[in-house]
Formats: sequence, C-alpha cells, structure tokens
Amino acid sequence: MSEPVRIIGIDPGLRRCGWGLIEAMDNRLRFVAGGTLTPPVEGALAVRLAALAGMLGEVLDQHRPDEVAVEETFVNAGVRSALILGQARGVVLVTPALRGLPVAEYAANLIKKSVVGTGHAAKDQVALMVKTLLPGAIVKGPDAADALAIAICHAHHRVSARRMGILA
Amino acid sequence: MSEPVRIIGIDPGLRRCGWGLIEAMDNRLRFVAGGTLTPPVEGALAVRLAALAGMLGEVLDQHRPDEVAVEETFVNAGVRSALILGQARGVVLVTPALRGLPVAEYAANLIKKSVVGTGHAAKDQVALMVKTLLPGAIVKGPDAADALAIAICHAHHRVSARRMGILA
Repeated sequence: MSEPVRIIGIDPGLRRCGWGLIEAMDNRLRFVAGGTLTPPVEGALAVRLAALAGMLGEVLDQHRPDEVAVEETFVNAGVRSALILGQARGVVLVTPALRGLPVAEYAANLIKKSVVGTGHAAKDQVALMVKTLLPGAIVKGPDAADALAIAICHAHHRVSARRMGILA
Repeated sequence: MSEPVRIIGIDPGLRRCGWGLIEAMDNRLRFVAGGTLTPPVEGALAVRLAALAGMLGEVLDQHRPDEVAVEETFVNAGVRSALILGQARGVVLVTPALRGLPVAEYAANLIKKSVVGTGHAAKDQVALMVKTLLPGAIVKGPDAADALAIAICHAHHRVSARRMGILA
C-alpha cells in the first residue's frame, strides 16, 4: 500500500481565494480541511497581495500539502479583470513554488469533467458532487467547494500530469 | 540636509523584468544600479514565477531600497497577454511588499511625462532623457531604462503619492 498524498486545490482570487485539502491514497480520497481566504479589500494592491501571500503561506505551513493544484483562469472576463485576476494568480502560484512544492494547473472544464462527468456543470452541481466524493467534508462556501474540486481533479490526473511534465 | 532615499523602479515582465535603482536627495538624483532579470522561459509557470521572485528578492536584499515604484500595466494587449503580465506583476508587487517595503504604482503616461515632458514619448526618447537626468548612469537595455524612468517618476511624485495614500 502506498503512502497517502496530501493535495491542496486553490481557486485564485484577490477578494476570495478558495482552498481545499484532501488526502489521496490509491483510489480513495479523504477530506482534510478547506476554507476561503479573504484578504483586506481596501489599501494598496501590493499590500493586499502580500496579505493573500501571507494567508496562503500560513495554510501551506499548517497543513503541509505534498502537491498543489490551481485552476487555469477563465479568460473571458475583459482585459481589466484578467489583469486583476492574473495578479492574484501570480501570488497563488508563486507562494507554494517558493516553498519548493510542485504546482499543477488544470482547465476549468477538465475540473468539472473530473468531478461531475461533464465540462459544463453548474457551480452547485460541482459542490454537490464534491460532498458526494468526499463523505463528511465540511465545505465552507462555493470557493472552498471549487478548490476541493480542483484537488479531486489533480488526484485523478496527477500521475499523467507528472508524466507529461505539466506538474512542476 | 535630508537623508538620501533609495528608490527602485521595476518594469514587470515574465521574460524580461527591468529594474533600476537611484538615490534621491532633495532635488538631486543619482544612479546606483540597474539591469534586466530574465527568468527561464521554459518550464512550469509556477517555477518561472518563483525564479522571477527569487531574482528580484536578491536585487532587493543586495541593494536595500527604501521605496519601490512599479509601472501600472498598459491593458491594451488582449486578455491572454493581460493575464500573463498580471501574473508577473503580482509577483513583482508581492516580493517587495512581503519585505515590508512601500510600493507605489504609476501610469505609463505619467512616467513618460515626468521624464520626457510629454505622455506620448517614444521608448528611445525615454532612454535618452534617463541618461541626461542620471549623468554617468549605466543603462543596460530598454527594460532597465524604463525601470529607471519609473524610479525618477517616483522621486518626483513620492511626497504627493504618500499624501494621497497611493504609496503603500
């Protein structure tokens, strides 16, 4: 029997950043923890980004994941939104990478397909399936549910992701 | 006579990130150092961003600026480009902010206006004026010139930026 792998999924955002940690062993998944980071919405951008980095860093240091999975950003929201989300995303990617953790990225429709079975599932369908796939999970809101879905997607794809060199 | 303030200007980019450090005392400016960071262009995004953070962190730790100025991104380059630049920008903003340094942001046309006198100057005009305003400066390429222009802009605006709460 192999060792369990601790996977954290992260749904990037500057105002609301969801995270969800699971353990994967062979084909079994177990919920560990999850939540939503809410950095201050006021103040200079650099300070808000540093708050996000600090909060995410605390989660990583407390829960010690082995691997990280982040949703690829949906780039259909205008240039200004893409730039803002990009800045939060840069912080979300760099914070675990600076700790030496491998970070994989997955497209939104692959995440939905992994959890619900179709790439076009609604947000509440994803949350429902996350609770089904992780019995006993305490899912704190939609961002945490999305983050757990990202972690589940990575549990399903991590071996092939590593083989394809997608996983850092 | 007041103490000199060390200002680093940064022109964010994932492939080429310019930086330029000056000292400002009263109305006088002095060139200290500058260059261009070139993180690896291959590999996972998170690893490339971590390389950028590491390189920028080394510059900050070596040169110990007091204040940081970053160009506000020109958002006219398409959603995909905005997202990529946003990710590099997030790293460039968070790296000094995590070291407790104040980070100010300036629009591209204000930077040009501060250095050349007009908001619509060409890139080589900016480089030429940077060399004029910083006699003896060793300007290593266009990204370093832009970064020095950002630092000069901050030297001109830092008191009012602080008053207006723009400076973190």
